[in-house]
Amino acid sequence: MLSNHLQNGIETARLVWSRLPNSDDEALDEVGLSKKSDGSRSESLDYEVIENNAYREEQAQRGKLMVGYYVGVKWFFALLIGIGTGLAAVFINISVENFAGWKFQLTFSIIQKSYVAGFLVYILFNLLLVFSSVYIVTQFAPAAAGSGIPEIKGYLNGVDTHGILLFRTLIGKIFGSIGSVGGGLALGKEGPLVHTGACIASLLGQGGSTKYHLSSRWLQVFKTDRDRRDLVTCGCAAGVAAAFRAPVGGVLFALEEVTSWWRSQLMWRVFFTSAVVAVVVRTAMGWCKSGKCGHFGSGGFIIWDISDGQEDYSFEELLPMAIIGVIGGLLGALFNQLTLYITYWRRNYLHKKGSRVKMIEVCLVSLITSVISFGLPLLRKCSPCPEVELNSSIECPRPPGMYGNYVNFYCGKDKEYNDLATIFFNTQDDAIRNLFSAKTIHEYSAQSLLTFLVMFYSLAVVTFGTAVPAGQFVPGIMIGSTYGRLVGMFVVNFYKKLNIEEGTYALLGAASFLGGSMRMTVSLCVIMVEITNNLKLLPLIMLVLLISKAVGDAFNEGLYEEQARLRGIPLLESRPKYQMRKMTAKEACGNKKVVYFPRVVKVADVVSILQSNEHNGFPVIDHTRNGESLVIGLMLRSHLLVLLQSKVDFQHSPLPSDPRGGGKPISKGISIDDIHLSSDDLEMYIDLAPFLNPSPYVVPEDMSLSKVYNLFRQLGLRHILVVPRASRVIGLITRKDLLIEDNENSETVELQSTSVRAQRQDRKASVREADAEHPLLNGLLVKEYSSS
Amino acid sequence: MLSNHLQNGIETARLVWSRLPNSDDEALDEVGLSKKSDGSRSESLDYEVIENNAYREEQAQRGKLMVGYYVGVKWFFALLIGIGTGLAAVFINISVENFAGWKFQLTFSIIQKSYVAGFLVYILFNLLLVFSSVYIVTQFAPAAAGSGIPEIKGYLNGVDTHGILLFRTLIGKIFGSIGSVGGGLALGKEGPLVHTGACIASLLGQGGSTKYHLSSRWLQVFKTDRDRRDLVTCGCAAGVAAAFRAPVGGVLFALEEVTSWWRSQLMWRVFFTSAVVAVVVRTAMGWCKSGKCGHFGSGGFIIWDISDGQEDYSFEELLPMAIIGVIGGLLGALFNQLTLYITYWRRNYLHKKGSRVKMIEVCLVSLITSVISFGLPLLRKCSPCPEVELNSSIECPRPPGMYGNYVNFYCGKDKEYNDLATIFFNTQDDAIRNLFSAKTIHEYSAQSLLTFLVMFYSLAVVTFGTAVPAGQFVPGIMIGSTYGRLVGMFVVNFYKKLNIEEGTYALLGAASFLGGSMRMTVSLCVIMVEITNNLKLLPLIMLVLLISKAVGDAFNEGLYEEQARLRGIPLLESRPKYQMRKMTAKEACGNKKVVYFPRVVKVADVVSILQSNEHNGFPVIDHTRNGESLVIGLMLRSHLLVLLQSKVDFQHSPLPSDPRGGGKPISKGISIDDIHLSSDDLEMYIDLAPFLNPSPYVVPEDMSLSKVYNLFRQLGLRHILVVPRASRVIGLITRKDLLIEDNENSETVELQSTSVRAQRQDRKASVREADAEHPLLNGLLVKEYSSS
Repeated sequence: MLSNHLQNGIETARLVWSRLPNSDDEALDEVGLSKKSDGSRSESLDYEVIENNAYREEQAQRGKLMVGYYVGVKWFFALLIGIGTGLAAVFINISVENFAGWKFQLTFSIIQKSYVAGFLVYILFNLLLVFSSVYIVTQFAPAAAGSGIPEIKGYLNGVDTHGILLFRTLIGKIFGSIGSVGGGLALGKEGPLVHTGACIASLLGQGGSTKYHLSSRWLQVFKTDRDRRDLVTCGCAAGVAAAFRAPVGGVLFALEEVTSWWRSQLMWRVFFTSAVVAVVVRTAMGWCKSGKCGHFGSGGFIIWDISDGQEDYSFEELLPMAIIGVIGGLLGALFNQLTLYITYWRRNYLHKKGSRVKMIEVCLVSLITSVISFGLPLLRKCSPCPEVELNSSIECPRPPGMYGNYVNFYCGKDKEYNDLATIFFNTQDDAIRNLFSAKTIHEYSAQSLLTFLVMFYSLAVVTFGTAVPAGQFVPGIMIGSTYGRLVGMFVVNFYKKLNIEEGTYALLGAASFLGGSMRMTVSLCVIMVEITNNLKLLPLIMLVLLISKAVGDAFNEGLYEEQARLRGIPLLESRPKYQMRKMTAKEACGNKKVVYFPRVVKVADVVSILQSNEHNGFPVIDHTRNGESLVIGLMLRSHLLVLLQSKVDFQHSPLPSDPRGGGKPISKGISIDDIHLSSDDLEMYIDLAPFLNPSPYVVPEDMSLSKVYNLFRQLGLRHILVVPRASRVIGLITRKDLLIEDNENSETVELQSTSVRAQRQDRKASVREADAEHPLLNGLLVKEYSSS
Repeated sequence: MLSNHLQNGIETARLVWSRLPNSDDEALDEVGLSKKSDGSRSESLDYEVIENNAYREEQAQRGKLMVGYYVGVKWFFALLIGIGTGLAAVFINISVENFAGWKFQLTFSIIQKSYVAGFLVYILFNLLLVFSSVYIVTQFAPAAAGSGIPEIKGYLNGVDTHGILLFRTLIGKIFGSIGSVGGGLALGKEGPLVHTGACIASLLGQGGSTKYHLSSRWLQVFKTDRDRRDLVTCGCAAGVAAAFRAPVGGVLFALEEVTSWWRSQLMWRVFFTSAVVAVVVRTAMGWCKSGKCGHFGSGGFIIWDISDGQEDYSFEELLPMAIIGVIGGLLGALFNQLTLYITYWRRNYLHKKGSRVKMIEVCLVSLITSVISFGLPLLRKCSPCPEVELNSSIECPRPPGMYGNYVNFYCGKDKEYNDLATIFFNTQDDAIRNLFSAKTIHEYSAQSLLTFLVMFYSLAVVTFGTAVPAGQFVPGIMIGSTYGRLVGMFVVNFYKKLNIEEGTYALLGAASFLGGSMRMTVSLCVIMVEITNNLKLLPLIMLVLLISKAVGDAFNEGLYEEQARLRGIPLLESRPKYQMRKMTAKEACGNKKVVYFPRVVKVADVVSILQSNEHNGFPVIDHTRNGESLVIGLMLRSHLLVLLQSKVDFQHSPLPSDPRGGGKPISKGISIDDIHLSSDDLEMYIDLAPFLNPSPYVVPEDMSLSKVYNLFRQLGLRHILVVPRASRVIGLITRKDLLIEDNENSETVELQSTSVRAQRQDRKASVREADAEHPLLNGLLVKEYSSS
């Protein structure tokens, strides 16, 4: 059927493409970066392309031993990601806690003498930290701004955003987080930690940063996008595990929120990474307990243990809890909408004016935050301390320089505390701990909580989208736990007899706001349980999350999806759109030109085609000897660029070359404009057959687009060829054809004969007789093909 | 291109196929049951087939309102599944606890007088319960034997096993579990509860059992396999959530262990179902606390709270914990291997002899179990009670008829206890609670634990595969916690200074054995944490699971996979086999005949083709006016059978009919042998075009089989057509083509212009100029197709 030379070429290509240690790669191999990114990352990306072919051939020869090595390196990398992310988290936490500790210690000691001086020192300290953060981000690592989760989500969906996984982004993220969180802005360090984990994973996957000469050839095992994506998934899970000390939450976050293609094998490795993080963080915490880490004591890692809180709940409480869910959904959806508008305005008007404007903006936000968090508690009248029970561990007011409830701030008497200062003039972790605290009924007045809610909500909205690393988890928990505690106060007053803790409602409020804003379900639930160490509240958290997500979904999309869309990251949702049902594959292609190559193509033609369009994939069409045309594969732009730059595969003859195993590695090849070819080169030819993907996925022209969408999304493809309907069927593959047993096992299966099997075989025998009775039909409708 | 009549037919079919409320269905629509099952289930299955077409048309007209109803019903069903499974679990638990409670109460009161009489009563009581179980299973519901998890796993993978989801199986499972667990056999009720949940879900999905006249037409909304599969997934999660009171564990179990195709939308619904179960079970437990449920008090639901156990661990402990992991892997793998051999032998020799043999076998096992569990403690010397601290809540010996440690059994003195009886002569739940218990150091002697381990392990192996409903979770936990406690005892003796609880090691042992046998990871980890209510041990559980799974994997496959293979359930693993890389799609089809139909086919031909083979799908090939042949779709056997039985679509002319929207519903159509056609009927024709699937997935003949495998597995297909390479490319679909924005959103996206976008547009402009410079190439290599 195929002419000989063509057959040869295809055969070679198929071998090259199919001999990969990890055969899953094939399906995803062409999923790549739709936008080119410069810097160290893309260098090593382009550089891999042809090397791959040689590499794979090599791999095929080394066989299963190599596969073992490859698997080993995967697990070793998972270990390294766990350790790296764990250490990064510990470093960020220790730094933040120490900066914040110094700040509050200094301020508290100065306000004993002068509130004005204390105010100024507080403002300056915050400003300095925030400025260092925004300076690092704007000058050195622009991609480190924001939480990074939408971008990582995009990356794992198949869209690469400029520079998000560079080494400088990692550095910017780590130091930027320290500044922005330590500087008291209304943002958290959890999103950035996820990004940090992803960066560490990606850099490991490339074998280090080539730009900063930190790379190692030995580690450059992972050449396919799929492997890198797997590593980044591990990194995300590690980030969440480190941020919340929630290893299972990390796995679920990676599974539910960030990945688009999930395989159960990966779960196992992600799980391992999370476990490593848990051990690293725990070890560091144990080491810090002895006081070696300065102010980093019980604080830092956000574990708000309320395991001594409410044990039980009664049915009367379900109504206020449902109300918390509804409030969470409404406020969360509003938060998404407001941040969407503000970010949109910022991107299009403010941030276009350059990094100076960005810096001024952040400094202004810092000033406002400082003034509000210092000034508002000043306006608030202090309350007298509650009567202290003998065996209670709660001190009121708390001793200066310690963590705890009942902050004495601008109070006349010694035995008084300022409830607004307890939550506002504090680090966020301590504020949350105070809001979640049990056995402190009526600590806060409704007025204070309401004031705090309004001010902090506004600050969180304004701070979101500024040019500093910023997570939304902790602010979300702050907002949610405030209104949760508010509801809890009313419930305590209303159901006087029940054993109700306000702290429990604060926790449910936190869950509801996060659910209403981020729209996560299982992962959020597990994270909430893990950080509060209270499994008994699980059904209640589930209930609240269900309600808040449902309410939020009625208004808009989740925070990360909204932000991803705003940033122009085209995420493919898990479901096809409604209107796709009525469209065909052909309609989706629209009027676009199909640009294709013949098998052997002139170099000049390749250059001009690459220059004349932006396509990333080109079908290759050849002709058989009897003149039939035949689609022999798909050629990627990136591969073509490497071919053009290496020149070793140029040939003088326009005839197909002998089958070969691909070219040699070349280290760079970014854009067609960077490739300079002499006029002699342009007159030469390239035989594309050894380099193309010989069997891209194809769909018939009139297939429903929603079906195409599923194919595309489920397999993580980057190109699907739309072809005419086939003229004949060579075979039909069913489940049975795919059940190739290993030799040692096949006997067992053959031996067994369940009653069903026995019946089926009888059936088959009788069928064969029936077959023999209708010999006429065989000739009429049944066609036989030999398997050669 | 296509001739007119052909185009019409295809168009109709495409519309019919694409207008489904849930568009995802398309991809999975042809995934079905590869084996026919009789009974109520398959009746409604065949019956749906043509109704579907009419139904879909109707749906398309009603539009989005109908979609809303459909989604509402889905959620309502999730609620019902949760309530149903929760109630079933409560019923099973109350019954088991009461039977077991009566049994032990009676025995204990009799042995005060005579040990022989007590022994006989104990044996008889057990025998009676076990016999009732095996009688129900063998006579009434043979599919209720075993755990059911391998079968459910197979069902969700696309293989239906005979009768596993029938109403009678549900009943058999519930009552059988009560007998087998209450009768003290070495098995658990957790696997059966998963099966129970799946049955409830499946019956709901069909709108009840038609065979027992319990169906409702109103509920028969779910017509596709995909919807039913989703419901069954919910049911599995509900089962686990109910069995362990572990809602998150349930979701993860469904995700990790049973489903093959997972979508994130489903997660949300599964989560909801689990939450409902948690609430139902909690409510029932609360109701039972007041003593209304007889012996069902603190026991029953397996929550072994060790939250007051070990708080911390030191590095020295990691080594013994790793050893526990290795032991778990080894014993787990051995368990899988032994049960595999025994089940194999049973299926092929013992169980072929009929249900009488099965009953005798189970009764023998029950006798042996009773004798061992009563007799062995008799041989054991009692130990004196430990010195009781004042504020300790532990009583020694425990008061008769209560739950707790330190059972006084065949002891000389009052202040003595029998350590073997504490774990052996007890319900399994209590035994596990006693093994996990903290602050009871040196309760058990090493000799007793070792005796118990060996005996119980043997009993569990022998009991596995008998004809009663049987779960492996609880026996696994028993075995694991025994050797775990054994290791813990040595650790306590070795590291004298550390604050070590033997109960912690028992928990880790349980995790390690389950990990070594079932090879679950994340879900098992979460289940262990949820049932012991101790989050602090999470990293240790992870560590132990990692080791035990890795060790186990070195020997064989997981318990469920082994069993599924033995039962002839062809599970498609998530990875293609190694040798598939070197095979092509065409090779996989082998020598098999491709049996196809023309568009308009004679009824007699259809009948004889259906009789002459067992294929479930047939390509349909038509010819255009200029004689070209064209594959126009895939016709399923089940659809053909319905067409043959209804006869309404028969026509006299061999020419294509006018396009129509499909036929009318018919209620039955099981096998080709059941259809009786007159000789006039046989002379008529059917136009298949309106009924076929017009765009089945196709792959080119030389695509690598591992690629085909991924396509098949990821999309959950049942047939893939292997076709020749295409001769031309009509278009290329990329990510951009699939990003169809809703109208209101598209503006936002258009408006934004990040710096990257701006650059790209500049780029495009320059590209167009470049394009203009090479007009020659356009004619040479670029072809344009209009979109009409």
